[in-house]
Amino acid sequence: MDAGQTTGAADALARRVADAMYAQDDASRTLGIRLEAVGAGWARMSMPVTEEMLNGHRVCHGGYIFSLADSAMAFASNSRNRVSVAQFCSITFLRPGRPGRLLLAEAREQADAGRTGMYAVEVCEKDGETVAVFSGAVRRLGDRTIV
Amino acid sequence: MDAGQTTGAADALARRVADAMYAQDDASRTLGIRLEAVGAGWARMSMPVTEEMLNGHRVCHGGYIFSLADSAMAFASNSRNRVSVAQFCSITFLRPGRPGRLLLAEAREQADAGRTGMYAVEVCEKDGETVAVFSGAVRRLGDRTIV
Amino acid sequence: MDAGQTTGAADALARRVADAMYAQDDASRTLGIRLEAVGAGWARMSMPVTEEMLNGHRVCHGGYIFSLADSAMAFASNSRNRVSVAQFCSITFLRPGRPGRLLLAEAREQADAGRTGMYAVEVCEKDGETVAVFSGAVRRLGDRTIV
Amino acid sequence: MDAGQTTGAADALARRVADAMYAQDDASRTLGIRLEAVGAGWARMSMPVTEEMLNGHRVCHGGYIFSLADSAMAFASNSRNRVSVAQFCSITFLRPGRPGRLLLAEAREQADAGRTGMYAVEVCEKDGETVAVFSGAVRRLGDRTIV
Repeated sequence: MDAGQTTGAADALARRVADAMYAQDDASRTLGIRLEAVGAGWARMSMPVTEEMLNGHRVCHGGYIFSLADSAMAFASNSRNRVSVAQFCSITFLRPGRPGRLLLAEAREQADAGRTGMYAVEVCEKDGETVAVFSGAVRRLGDRTIV
Repeated sequence: MDAGQTTGAADALARRVADAMYAQDDASRTLGIRLEAVGAGWARMSMPVTEEMLNGHRVCHGGYIFSLADSAMAFASNSRNRVSVAQFCSITFLRPGRPGRLLLAEAREQADAGRTGMYAVEVCEKDGETVAVFSGAVRRLGDRTIV
Repeated sequence: MDAGQTTGAADALARRVADAMYAQDDASRTLGIRLEAVGAGWARMSMPVTEEMLNGHRVCHGGYIFSLADSAMAFASNSRNRVSVAQFCSITFLRPGRPGRLLLAEAREQADAGRTGMYAVEVCEKDGETVAVFSGAVRRLGDRTIV
Repeated sequence: MDAGQTTGAADALARRVADAMYAQDDASRTLGIRLEAVGAGWARMSMPVTEEMLNGHRVCHGGYIFSLADSAMAFASNSRNRVSVAQFCSITFLRPGRPGRLLLAEAREQADAGRTGMYAVEVCEKDGETVAVFSGAVRRLGDRTIV
Protein backbone atom coordinates (compact mmCIF):
# COMPACT_ATOMS: atom_id res chain seq x y z
CA MET A 1 0.00 0.00 0.00
CA ASP A 2 2.75 2.46 0.92
CA ALA A 3 5.23 1.32 -1.67
CA GLY A 4 8.03 3.84 -2.06
CA GLN A 5 7.60 5.44 1.32
CA THR A 6 8.04 4.24 4.88
CA THR A 7 5.09 3.87 7.20
CA GLY A 8 6.58 6.75 9.18
CA ALA A 9 6.37 9.07 6.21
CA ALA A 10 2.83 7.92 5.35
CA ASP A 11 1.72 8.55 8.92
CA ALA A 12 3.35 11.98 8.94
CA LEU A 13 1.48 12.85 5.75
CA ALA A 14 -1.75 11.60 7.34
CA ARG A 15 -1.13 13.97 10.24
CA ARG A 16 -0.54 16.96 7.99
CA VAL A 17 -3.64 16.22 5.94
CA ALA A 18 -5.74 15.78 9.08
CA ASP A 19 -4.57 19.08 10.57
CA ALA A 20 -5.44 20.92 7.35
CA MET A 21 -8.87 19.26 7.15
CA TYR A 22 -9.73 19.79 10.79
CA ALA A 23 -8.90 23.51 10.56
CA GLN A 24 -11.60 23.81 7.84
CA ASP A 25 -14.09 21.43 9.42
CA ASP A 26 -16.61 23.66 11.20
CA ALA A 27 -19.08 20.78 11.40
CA SER A 28 -16.87 18.44 13.41
CA ARG A 29 -15.89 21.25 15.76
CA THR A 30 -19.52 22.34 16.21
CA LEU A 31 -20.42 18.76 17.10
CA GLY A 32 -17.64 18.56 19.69
CA ILE A 33 -15.79 15.93 17.66
CA ARG A 34 -12.03 15.75 18.32
CA LEU A 35 -9.30 13.99 16.40
CA GLU A 36 -7.58 11.63 18.83
CA ALA A 37 -5.15 9.87 16.50
CA VAL A 38 -4.62 9.34 12.79
CA GLY A 39 -2.34 7.36 10.48
CA ALA A 40 -2.23 6.09 6.91
CA GLY A 41 -5.67 4.56 6.31
CA TRP A 42 -7.10 4.93 9.81
CA ALA A 43 -8.32 7.51 12.33
CA ARG A 44 -9.72 7.66 15.86
CA MET A 45 -12.09 10.44 16.93
CA SER A 46 -14.11 11.25 20.05
CA MET A 47 -17.34 13.08 20.91
CA PRO A 48 -18.98 13.68 24.31
CA VAL A 49 -22.75 13.09 24.42
CA THR A 50 -24.31 16.35 25.64
CA GLU A 51 -27.86 17.23 26.72
CA GLU A 52 -28.58 19.01 23.45
CA MET A 53 -27.88 15.78 21.55
CA LEU A 54 -30.82 13.94 23.16
CA ASN A 55 -33.80 12.99 21.03
CA GLY A 56 -37.48 12.53 21.85
CA HIS A 57 -36.66 9.25 23.64
CA ARG A 58 -33.97 11.04 25.72
CA VAL A 59 -31.00 9.14 24.32
CA CYS A 60 -28.43 10.42 21.85
CA HIS A 61 -30.00 11.17 18.45
CA GLY A 62 -28.63 8.63 15.99
CA GLY A 63 -27.55 11.42 13.69
CA TYR A 64 -24.79 12.48 16.11
CA ILE A 65 -23.47 8.93 16.36
CA PHE A 66 -23.51 8.69 12.56
CA SER A 67 -21.72 12.06 12.35
CA LEU A 68 -18.92 10.85 14.60
CA ALA A 69 -18.47 7.67 12.54
CA ASP A 70 -18.65 9.61 9.28
CA SER A 71 -15.99 12.07 10.48
CA ALA A 72 -13.70 9.18 11.44
CA MET A 73 -14.15 7.73 7.94
CA ALA A 74 -13.45 11.15 6.39
CA PHE A 75 -10.13 11.50 8.20
CA ALA A 76 -9.12 7.88 7.50
CA SER A 77 -10.08 8.02 3.83
CA ASN A 78 -8.37 11.35 3.08
CA SER A 79 -5.26 10.37 5.03
CA ARG A 80 -3.24 9.48 1.92
CA ASN A 81 -3.86 13.01 0.57
CA ARG A 82 -6.43 12.02 -2.05
CA VAL A 83 -9.70 13.97 -1.77
CA SER A 84 -12.37 11.39 -0.90
CA VAL A 85 -16.08 11.92 -0.20
CA ALA A 86 -18.64 9.62 1.40
CA GLN A 87 -20.90 7.93 -1.09
CA PHE A 88 -22.72 5.04 0.65
CA CYS A 89 -22.92 4.34 4.38
CA SER A 90 -24.75 1.85 6.54
CA ILE A 91 -24.98 1.90 10.32
CA THR A 92 -26.42 -0.48 12.90
CA PHE A 93 -27.30 0.92 16.31
CA LEU A 94 -26.57 -1.63 19.04
CA ARG A 95 -26.93 0.31 22.29
CA PRO A 96 -28.16 3.82 23.15
CA GLY A 97 -25.64 6.66 23.44
CA ARG A 98 -26.01 7.86 27.01
CA PRO A 99 -25.72 11.51 28.12
CA GLY A 100 -22.44 12.40 29.77
CA ARG A 101 -20.48 9.58 28.13
CA LEU A 102 -17.52 9.99 25.77
CA LEU A 103 -17.90 8.10 22.48
CA LEU A 104 -14.89 6.90 20.49
CA ALA A 105 -14.96 5.98 16.79
CA GLU A 106 -12.17 4.08 15.10
CA ALA A 107 -12.12 3.86 11.30
CA ARG A 108 -9.92 1.45 9.36
CA GLU A 109 -9.51 0.83 5.65
CA GLN A 110 -10.89 -2.47 4.34
CA ALA A 111 -10.25 -2.09 0.62
CA ASP A 112 -8.92 0.45 -1.87
CA ALA A 113 -10.21 -0.34 -5.36
CA GLY A 114 -9.61 2.27 -8.02
CA ARG A 115 -11.79 5.23 -7.17
CA THR A 116 -13.66 3.51 -4.34
CA GLY A 117 -12.40 2.98 -0.79
CA MET A 118 -14.16 0.93 1.90
CA TYR A 119 -14.01 1.68 5.62
CA ALA A 120 -15.24 -0.11 8.75
CA VAL A 121 -15.94 2.08 11.78
CA GLU A 122 -16.77 0.95 15.30
CA VAL A 123 -18.25 3.39 17.80
CA CYS A 124 -17.96 2.53 21.49
CA GLU A 125 -18.15 4.21 24.87
CA LYS A 126 -14.73 4.99 26.31
CA ASP A 127 -13.69 1.85 28.22
CA GLY A 128 -17.05 0.38 27.36
CA GLU A 129 -19.20 -1.45 24.92
CA THR A 130 -19.92 -1.05 21.24
CA VAL A 131 -22.68 1.48 20.52
CA ALA A 132 -22.79 1.25 16.72
CA VAL A 133 -21.08 -0.40 13.75
CA PHE A 134 -20.72 1.61 10.53
CA SER A 135 -19.62 0.59 7.04
CA GLY A 136 -18.90 3.17 4.35
CA ALA A 137 -17.71 3.63 0.80
CA VAL A 138 -15.95 6.78 -0.39
CA ARG A 139 -15.25 8.01 -3.89
CA ARG A 140 -11.84 9.50 -4.78
CA LEU A 141 -12.20 12.77 -6.70
CA GLY A 142 -9.62 12.33 -9.45
CA ASP A 143 -6.17 13.58 -8.52
CA ARG A 144 -7.22 16.31 -6.12
CA THR A 145 -5.12 16.60 -2.97
CA ILE A 146 -5.73 18.22 0.41
CA VAL A 147 -2.22 19.59 1.19
CA MET B 1 -53.41 -0.60 8.15
CA ASP B 2 -55.76 1.67 10.05
CA ALA B 3 -58.44 -0.90 10.70
CA GLY B 4 -60.93 0.29 13.26
CA GLN B 5 -60.17 3.96 12.86
CA THR B 6 -60.56 6.45 10.09
CA THR B 7 -57.57 7.98 8.36
CA GLY B 8 -58.57 11.28 9.93
CA ALA B 9 -58.31 9.85 13.43
CA ALA B 10 -55.00 8.15 12.63
CA ASP B 11 -53.60 11.41 11.31
CA ALA B 12 -54.82 13.32 14.36
CA LEU B 13 -53.06 10.78 16.60
CA ALA B 14 -49.89 11.16 14.50
CA ARG B 15 -50.06 14.91 15.10
CA ARG B 16 -50.45 14.52 18.88
CA VAL B 17 -47.58 12.03 19.05
CA ALA B 18 -45.36 14.29 16.94
CA ASP B 19 -46.05 17.32 19.11
CA ALA B 20 -45.17 15.39 22.27
CA MET B 21 -41.99 13.99 20.70
CA TYR B 22 -40.84 17.29 19.25
CA ALA B 23 -41.24 19.04 22.62
CA GLN B 24 -38.73 16.54 24.08
CA ASP B 25 -36.42 16.43 21.06
CA ASP B 26 -33.55 18.78 21.91
CA ALA B 27 -31.43 17.25 19.16
CA SER B 28 -33.76 18.07 16.29
CA ARG B 29 -34.25 21.62 17.59
CA THR B 30 -30.49 22.11 18.05
CA LEU B 31 -29.96 20.99 14.46
CA GLY B 32 -32.57 23.45 13.19
CA ILE B 33 -34.84 20.61 12.07
CA ARG B 34 -38.54 21.51 11.82
CA LEU B 35 -41.58 19.30 11.48
CA GLU B 36 -43.39 20.41 8.32
CA ALA B 37 -46.15 17.81 8.15
CA VAL B 38 -46.99 14.41 9.62
CA GLY B 39 -49.61 11.70 9.22
CA ALA B 40 -50.09 7.99 9.94
CA GLY B 41 -46.88 6.35 8.69
CA TRP B 42 -45.23 9.39 7.14
CA ALA B 43 -43.55 12.69 8.02
CA ARG B 44 -41.92 15.65 6.27
CA MET B 45 -39.18 17.68 7.97
CA SER B 46 -36.89 20.53 6.93
CA MET B 47 -33.42 21.82 7.86
CA PRO B 48 -31.51 24.83 6.57
CA VAL B 49 -27.82 24.22 5.77
CA THR B 50 -25.83 26.72 7.84
CA GLU B 51 -22.14 27.69 7.81
CA GLU B 52 -21.44 25.67 10.95
CA MET B 53 -22.60 22.50 9.18
CA LEU B 54 -19.81 22.64 6.58
CA ASN B 55 -17.09 20.02 6.63
CA GLY B 56 -13.43 20.07 5.57
CA HIS B 57 -14.52 20.04 1.91
CA ARG B 58 -16.84 23.05 2.58
CA VAL B 59 -20.09 21.23 1.84
CA CYS B 60 -22.67 20.03 4.37
CA HIS B 61 -21.25 17.30 6.62
CA GLY B 62 -23.06 14.08 5.76
CA GLY B 63 -23.96 13.64 9.40
CA TYR B 64 -26.41 16.54 9.27
CA ILE B 65 -28.12 15.15 6.17
CA PHE B 66 -28.36 11.76 7.87
CA SER B 67 -29.75 13.46 11.01
CA LEU B 68 -32.53 15.10 9.02
CA ALA B 69 -33.46 11.80 7.36
CA ASP B 70 -33.27 9.93 10.67
CA SER B 71 -35.55 12.50 12.35
CA ALA B 72 -38.09 12.14 9.54
CA MET B 73 -38.04 8.36 10.03
CA ALA B 74 -38.44 8.81 13.79
CA PHE B 75 -41.58 10.92 13.40
CA ALA B 76 -43.03 8.63 10.72
CA SER B 77 -42.30 5.43 12.63
CA ASN B 78 -43.66 6.62 15.98
CA SER B 79 -46.74 8.17 14.36
CA ARG B 80 -49.03 5.28 15.30
CA ASN B 81 -48.11 5.80 18.97
CA ARG B 82 -45.84 2.76 19.29
CA VAL B 83 -42.35 3.60 20.60
CA SER B 84 -39.95 2.76 17.75
CA VAL B 85 -36.18 3.21 17.60
CA ALA B 86 -33.79 3.18 14.66
CA GLN B 87 -31.90 -0.07 14.32
CA PHE B 88 -30.33 -0.16 10.86
CA CYS B 89 -29.98 2.64 8.32
CA SER B 90 -28.30 3.03 4.95
CA ILE B 91 -27.81 6.27 3.07
CA THR B 92 -26.51 7.17 -0.38
CA PHE B 93 -25.26 10.70 -0.94
CA LEU B 94 -26.09 11.87 -4.47
CA ARG B 95 -25.31 15.59 -4.45
CA PRO B 96 -23.63 17.93 -1.95
CA GLY B 97 -25.76 19.87 0.53
CA ARG B 98 -25.02 23.50 -0.29
CA PRO B 99 -24.81 26.30 2.31
CA GLY B 100 -27.87 28.52 2.48
CA ARG B 101 -30.25 25.93 1.00
CA LEU B 102 -33.26 24.44 2.74
CA LEU B 103 -33.34 20.64 2.76
CA LEU B 104 -36.58 18.67 2.93
CA ALA B 105 -36.86 15.02 3.99
CA GLU B 106 -39.96 12.94 3.39
CA ALA B 107 -40.28 9.56 5.12
CA ARG B 108 -42.86 6.96 4.17
CA GLU B 109 -43.59 3.50 5.55
CA GLN B 110 -42.68 0.57 3.27
CA ALA B 111 -43.52 -2.36 5.55
CA ASP B 112 -44.69 -3.10 9.07
CA ALA B 113 -43.73 -6.64 10.06
CA GLY B 114 -44.20 -7.52 13.69
CA ARG B 115 -41.62 -5.61 15.66
CA THR B 116 -39.81 -4.25 12.62
CA GLY B 117 -40.89 -1.31 10.46
CA MET B 118 -39.22 -0.20 7.24
CA TYR B 119 -39.04 3.39 5.99
CA ALA B 120 -37.80 5.05 2.78
CA VAL B 121 -36.66 8.66 3.10
CA GLU B 122 -35.76 11.03 0.29
CA VAL B 123 -33.85 14.23 1.04
CA CYS B 124 -33.97 17.01 -1.54
CA GLU B 125 -33.39 20.73 -1.83
CA LYS B 126 -36.61 22.75 -1.65
CA ASP B 127 -37.88 22.96 -5.24
CA GLY B 128 -34.76 21.11 -6.31
CA GLU B 129 -32.99 17.86 -6.80
CA THR B 130 -32.47 14.81 -4.63
CA VAL B 131 -29.50 15.13 -2.28
CA ALA B 132 -29.65 11.73 -0.56
CA VAL B 133 -31.72 8.56 -0.37
CA PHE B 134 -32.07 6.81 3.00
CA SER B 135 -33.50 3.42 3.96
CA GLY B 136 -34.09 2.49 7.58
CA ALA B 137 -35.44 -0.22 9.87
CA VAL B 138 -36.90 0.53 13.28
CA ARG B 139 -37.67 -1.80 16.15
CA ARG B 140 -40.92 -1.44 18.11
CA LEU B 141 -40.32 -1.51 21.87
CA GLY B 142 -43.09 -3.81 23.05
CA ASP B 143 -46.31 -2.01 23.92
CA ARG B 144 -44.79 1.30 24.98
CA THR B 145 -46.65 4.40 23.79
CA ILE B 146 -45.66 8.04 23.42
CA VAL B 147 -48.89 9.78 24.44
CA MET C 1 -38.30 11.94 -16.80
CA ASP C 2 -39.37 10.91 -20.29
CA ALA C 3 -39.00 14.32 -21.92
CA GLY C 4 -39.00 14.10 -25.68
CA GLN C 5 -40.68 10.73 -25.85
CA THR C 6 -44.03 9.40 -24.80
CA THR C 7 -44.38 6.99 -21.92
CA GLY C 8 -45.48 4.41 -24.45
CA ALA C 9 -42.23 4.69 -26.39
CA ALA C 10 -40.17 4.60 -23.19
CA ASP C 11 -41.99 1.47 -22.06
CA ALA C 12 -41.52 -0.20 -25.44
CA LEU C 13 -37.78 0.52 -25.22
CA ALA C 14 -37.74 -0.93 -21.69
CA ARG C 15 -39.33 -4.10 -23.08
CA ARG C 16 -36.76 -4.43 -25.87
CA VAL C 17 -33.87 -3.86 -23.45
CA ALA C 18 -35.29 -6.38 -21.01
CA ASP C 19 -35.72 -9.05 -23.67
CA ALA C 20 -32.12 -8.59 -24.82
CA MET C 21 -30.80 -8.71 -21.25
CA TYR C 22 -32.87 -11.70 -20.21
CA ALA C 23 -31.65 -13.71 -23.22
CA GLN C 24 -28.09 -13.25 -21.95
CA ASP C 25 -28.87 -13.64 -18.26
CA ASP C 26 -27.98 -17.24 -17.43
CA ALA C 27 -27.95 -16.42 -13.72
CA SER C 28 -31.56 -15.26 -13.49
CA ARG C 29 -32.73 -18.25 -15.56
CA THR C 30 -30.69 -20.68 -13.42
CA LEU C 31 -32.29 -19.21 -10.31
CA GLY C 32 -35.79 -19.62 -11.76
CA ILE C 33 -36.29 -15.85 -11.89
CA ARG C 34 -38.87 -14.67 -14.45
CA LEU C 35 -39.57 -11.21 -15.77
CA GLU C 36 -43.25 -10.49 -15.08
CA ALA C 37 -43.48 -6.89 -16.24
CA VAL C 38 -41.20 -3.98 -17.05
CA GLY C 39 -41.46 -0.31 -17.96
CA ALA C 40 -39.34 2.83 -17.95
CA GLY C 41 -37.67 2.87 -14.52
CA TRP C 42 -39.40 -0.14 -13.00
CA ALA C 43 -39.61 -3.95 -13.21
CA ARG C 44 -41.45 -6.82 -11.55
CA MET C 45 -39.90 -10.29 -11.33
CA SER C 46 -40.85 -13.59 -9.69
CA MET C 47 -39.04 -16.63 -8.26
CA PRO C 48 -40.47 -19.82 -6.74
CA VAL C 49 -38.77 -21.00 -3.52
CA THR C 50 -37.58 -24.56 -4.17
CA GLU C 51 -36.13 -27.23 -1.86
CA GLU C 52 -32.62 -26.62 -3.09
CA MET C 53 -32.83 -22.98 -1.94
CA LEU C 54 -33.19 -23.93 1.74
CA ASN C 55 -30.38 -23.14 4.15
CA GLY C 56 -29.22 -24.82 7.36
CA HIS C 57 -32.28 -23.42 9.17
CA ARG C 58 -34.54 -24.88 6.44
CA VAL C 59 -35.84 -21.55 5.15
CA CYS C 60 -34.87 -19.82 1.90
CA HIS C 61 -31.18 -18.80 1.93
CA GLY C 62 -31.09 -15.00 2.03
CA GLY C 63 -28.86 -14.99 -1.02
CA TYR C 64 -31.71 -16.13 -3.26
CA ILE C 65 -34.01 -13.41 -1.95
CA PHE C 66 -31.25 -10.87 -2.53
CA SER C 67 -30.71 -12.27 -6.04
CA LEU C 68 -34.36 -11.78 -6.93
CA ALA C 69 -34.31 -8.17 -5.66
CA ASP C 70 -31.01 -7.48 -7.40
CA SER C 71 -32.36 -8.83 -10.71
CA ALA C 72 -35.43 -6.61 -10.40
CA MET C 73 -33.14 -3.60 -9.86
CA ALA C 74 -31.01 -4.63 -12.84
CA PHE C 75 -33.99 -4.70 -15.19
CA ALA C 76 -35.43 -1.45 -13.80
CA SER C 77 -32.11 0.41 -13.91
CA ASN C 78 -31.15 -0.67 -17.42
CA SER C 79 -34.64 -0.02 -18.77
CA ARG C 80 -33.74 3.33 -20.32
CA ASN C 81 -31.01 1.60 -22.36
CA ARG C 82 -28.06 2.89 -20.34
CA VAL C 83 -25.77 0.13 -19.05
CA SER C 84 -26.03 0.25 -15.25
CA VAL C 85 -24.38 -2.01 -12.68
CA ALA C 86 -25.12 -2.52 -8.99
CA GLN C 87 -22.70 -0.71 -6.74
CA PHE C 88 -24.18 -0.66 -3.25
CA CYS C 89 -27.16 -2.57 -1.87
CA SER C 90 -28.77 -2.98 1.52
CA ILE C 91 -31.46 -5.49 2.43
CA THR C 92 -33.58 -6.10 5.51
CA PHE C 93 -35.08 -9.55 5.96
CA LEU C 94 -38.52 -9.29 7.57
CA ARG C 95 -40.00 -12.78 7.25
CA PRO C 96 -38.61 -16.14 6.14
CA GLY C 97 -39.03 -17.23 2.52
CA ARG C 98 -41.03 -20.44 2.75
CA PRO C 99 -40.59 -23.45 0.46
CA GLY C 100 -43.20 -23.78 -2.26
CA ARG C 101 -44.15 -20.10 -2.27
CA LEU C 102 -43.78 -17.72 -5.20
CA LEU C 103 -41.88 -14.53 -4.38
CA LEU C 104 -42.46 -11.28 -6.27
CA ALA C 105 -40.03 -8.37 -6.37
CA GLU C 106 -40.99 -4.92 -7.59
CA ALA C 107 -38.27 -2.35 -8.24
CA ARG C 108 -38.95 1.35 -8.76
CA GLU C 109 -36.63 4.27 -9.42
CA GLN C 110 -36.22 6.76 -6.58
CA ALA C 111 -33.61 9.10 -8.04
CA ASP C 112 -31.46 9.51 -11.13
CA ALA C 113 -28.47 11.74 -10.37
CA GLY C 114 -25.79 11.90 -13.01
CA ARG C 115 -24.07 8.53 -13.05
CA THR C 116 -25.88 7.18 -9.99
CA GLY C 117 -29.40 5.77 -9.90
CA MET C 118 -31.30 4.75 -6.77
CA TYR C 119 -33.88 1.95 -6.61
CA ALA C 120 -36.26 0.67 -3.92
CA VAL C 121 -37.29 -2.97 -4.17
CA GLU C 122 -39.93 -4.77 -2.14
CA VAL C 123 -40.06 -8.57 -2.08
CA CYS C 124 -43.29 -10.22 -1.01
CA GLU C 125 -45.06 -13.53 -1.25
CA LYS C 126 -47.67 -13.64 -4.02
CA ASP C 127 -50.89 -12.34 -2.43
CA GLY C 128 -49.03 -12.15 0.84
CA GLU C 129 -46.78 -10.22 3.13
CA THR C 130 -43.49 -8.43 2.67
CA VAL C 131 -40.49 -10.75 2.99
CA ALA C 132 -37.67 -8.25 2.46
CA VAL C 133 -37.01 -4.60 1.63
CA PHE C 134 -34.01 -3.75 -0.55
CA SER C 135 -32.39 -0.43 -1.42
CA GLY C 136 -29.73 -0.17 -4.13
CA ALA C 137 -27.52 2.24 -6.01
CA VAL C 138 -26.33 1.58 -9.56
CA ARG C 139 -23.59 3.25 -11.56
CA ARG C 140 -24.15 4.16 -15.23
CA LEU C 141 -21.24 3.05 -17.41
CA GLY C 142 -20.70 6.10 -19.61
CA ASP C 143 -22.73 6.04 -22.81
CA ARG C 144 -22.90 2.28 -23.25
CA THR C 145 -26.26 0.93 -24.39
CA ILE C 146 -27.85 -2.51 -24.29
CA VAL C 147 -29.76 -2.55 -27.60
CA MET D 1 -15.61 -13.74 24.80
CA ASP D 2 -14.90 -17.39 25.52
CA ALA D 3 -14.88 -17.13 29.31
CA GLY D 4 -15.00 -20.54 30.92
CA GLN D 5 -13.69 -22.44 27.94
CA THR D 6 -10.42 -22.45 26.08
CA THR D 7 -10.15 -21.20 22.52
CA GLY D 8 -9.50 -24.79 21.50
CA ALA D 9 -12.82 -25.94 22.92
CA ALA D 10 -14.66 -22.98 21.36
CA ASP D 11 -13.14 -23.75 17.97
CA ALA D 12 -14.01 -27.44 18.29
CA LEU D 13 -17.62 -26.48 19.03
CA ALA D 14 -17.59 -24.15 16.02
CA ARG D 15 -16.49 -27.09 13.88
CA ARG D 16 -19.24 -29.39 15.17
CA VAL D 17 -21.89 -26.70 14.64
CA ALA D 18 -20.62 -26.00 11.14
CA ASP D 19 -20.68 -29.66 10.15
CA ALA D 20 -24.26 -30.02 11.36
CA MET D 21 -25.35 -26.84 9.54
CA TYR D 22 -23.58 -27.67 6.31
CA ALA D 23 -25.20 -31.12 6.17
CA GLN D 24 -28.62 -29.38 6.17
CA ASP D 25 -27.63 -26.50 3.92
CA ASP D 26 -28.88 -27.46 0.46
CA ALA D 27 -28.57 -23.85 -0.71
CA SER D 28 -24.86 -23.51 -0.07
CA ARG D 29 -24.17 -26.88 -1.69
CA THR D 30 -26.33 -26.01 -4.72
CA LEU D 31 -24.37 -22.80 -5.13
CA GLY D 32 -21.05 -24.65 -4.98
CA ILE D 33 -20.12 -22.96 -1.71
CA ARG D 34 -17.61 -24.86 0.44
CA LEU D 35 -16.59 -24.37 4.04
CA GLU D 36 -12.83 -23.84 4.04
CA ALA D 37 -12.24 -23.09 7.73
CA VAL D 38 -14.23 -22.07 10.79
CA GLY D 39 -13.58 -21.05 14.39
CA ALA D 40 -15.33 -19.24 17.24
CA GLY D 41 -16.76 -16.08 15.65
CA TRP D 42 -15.30 -16.47 12.16
CA ALA D 43 -15.54 -18.56 9.00
CA ARG D 44 -13.95 -18.78 5.56
CA MET D 45 -15.88 -20.12 2.56
CA SER D 46 -15.21 -20.46 -1.17
CA MET D 47 -17.25 -20.53 -4.39
CA PRO D 48 -16.12 -20.98 -7.99
CA VAL D 49 -17.72 -18.60 -10.52
CA THR D 50 -19.35 -20.78 -13.18
CA GLU D 51 -20.94 -19.96 -16.54
CA GLU D 52 -24.43 -20.32 -15.17
CA MET D 53 -23.73 -17.55 -12.64
CA LEU D 54 -23.23 -14.90 -15.34
CA ASN D 55 -25.77 -12.11 -15.69
CA GLY D 56 -26.90 -10.04 -18.66
CA HIS D 57 -23.59 -8.13 -18.57
CA ARG D 58 -21.67 -11.46 -18.61
CA VAL D 59 -20.11 -11.08 -15.17
CA CYS D 60 -21.09 -12.91 -12.00
CA HIS D 61 -24.62 -11.94 -10.87
CA GLY D 62 -24.27 -9.96 -7.63
CA GLY D 63 -26.69 -12.31 -5.95
CA TYR D 64 -24.14 -15.15 -5.99
CA ILE D 65 -21.46 -12.93 -4.45
CA PHE D 66 -23.95 -11.85 -1.79
CA SER D 67 -24.88 -15.51 -1.19
CA LEU D 68 -21.26 -16.44 -0.57
CA ALA D 69 -20.80 -13.56 1.90
CA ASP D 70 -24.10 -14.34 3.60
CA SER D 71 -23.14 -18.02 4.01
CA ALA D 72 -19.82 -17.00 5.57
CA MET D 73 -21.70 -14.77 8.03
CA ALA D 74 -24.13 -17.61 8.80
CA PHE D 75 -21.33 -20.00 9.74
CA ALA D 76 -19.44 -17.35 11.73
CA SER D 77 -22.52 -16.14 13.59
CA ASN D 78 -23.83 -19.60 14.52
CA SER D 79 -20.36 -20.82 15.52
CA ARG D 80 -20.98 -20.40 19.27
CA ASN D 81 -24.02 -22.70 18.97
CA ARG D 82 -26.67 -19.98 19.25
CA VAL D 83 -29.18 -19.99 16.38
CA SER D 84 -28.65 -16.69 14.55
CA VAL D 85 -30.39 -15.40 11.43
CA ALA D 86 -29.48 -12.56 9.08
CA GLN D 87 -31.51 -9.43 9.65
CA PHE D 88 -29.80 -6.53 7.85
CA CYS D 89 -27.00 -6.68 5.30
CA SER D 90 -25.23 -4.16 3.11
CA ILE D 91 -22.81 -4.95 0.33
CA THR D 92 -20.58 -2.83 -1.92
CA PHE D 93 -19.44 -4.33 -5.21
CA LEU D 94 -15.89 -3.21 -6.04
CA ARG D 95 -14.85 -5.38 -8.98
CA PRO D 96 -16.69 -7.86 -11.21
CA GLY D 97 -16.62 -11.55 -10.34
CA ARG D 98 -14.98 -13.18 -13.38
CA PRO D 99 -15.94 -16.60 -14.78
CA GLY D 100 -13.55 -19.40 -13.86
CA ARG D 101 -12.21 -17.69 -10.74
CA LEU D 102 -12.47 -19.00 -7.18
CA LEU D 103 -13.94 -16.49 -4.72
CA LEU D 104 -13.12 -16.56 -1.01
CA ALA D 105 -15.20 -14.92 1.72
CA GLU D 106 -13.92 -14.38 5.23
CA ALA D 107 -16.37 -13.35 7.95
CA ARG D 108 -15.31 -12.04 11.35
CA GLU D 109 -17.30 -10.88 14.36
CA GLN D 110 -17.24 -7.15 15.07
CA ALA D 111 -19.64 -6.93 18.02
CA ASP D 112 -21.93 -9.14 20.08
CA ALA D 113 -24.59 -7.03 21.79
CA GLY D 114 -27.41 -8.92 23.45
CA ARG D 115 -29.50 -10.45 20.69
CA THR D 116 -27.66 -8.70 17.86
CA GLY D 117 -24.31 -9.71 16.38
CA MET D 118 -22.36 -7.75 13.78
CA TYR D 119 -20.12 -9.29 11.13
CA ALA D 120 -17.73 -7.88 8.51
CA VAL D 121 -17.15 -10.04 5.43
CA GLU D 122 -14.61 -9.47 2.69
CA VAL D 123 -14.92 -11.33 -0.63
CA CYS D 124 -11.83 -11.59 -2.81
CA GLU D 125 -10.47 -13.66 -5.66
CA LYS D 126 -8.08 -16.39 -4.49
CA ASP D 127 -4.62 -14.77 -4.40
CA GLY D 128 -6.24 -11.64 -5.79
CA GLU D 129 -8.09 -8.46 -5.13
CA THR D 130 -11.19 -7.58 -3.15
CA VAL D 131 -14.41 -8.11 -5.10
CA ALA D 132 -16.96 -6.99 -2.49
CA VAL D 133 -17.24 -5.82 1.11
CA PHE D 134 -20.27 -6.92 3.14
CA SER D 135 -21.55 -5.84 6.55
CA GLY D 136 -24.31 -7.75 8.32
CA ALA D 137 -26.36 -7.92 11.50
CA VAL D 138 -27.83 -11.17 12.81
CA ARG D 139 -30.50 -11.74 15.43
CA ARG D 140 -30.07 -14.50 18.03
CA LEU D 141 -33.23 -16.61 18.38
CA GLY D 142 -33.54 -16.94 22.15
CA ASP D 143 -31.72 -19.93 23.58
CA ARG D 144 -32.05 -22.21 20.56
CA THR D 145 -28.94 -24.24 19.74
CA ILE D 146 -27.77 -26.04 16.61
CA VAL D 147 -26.11 -29.15 18.14
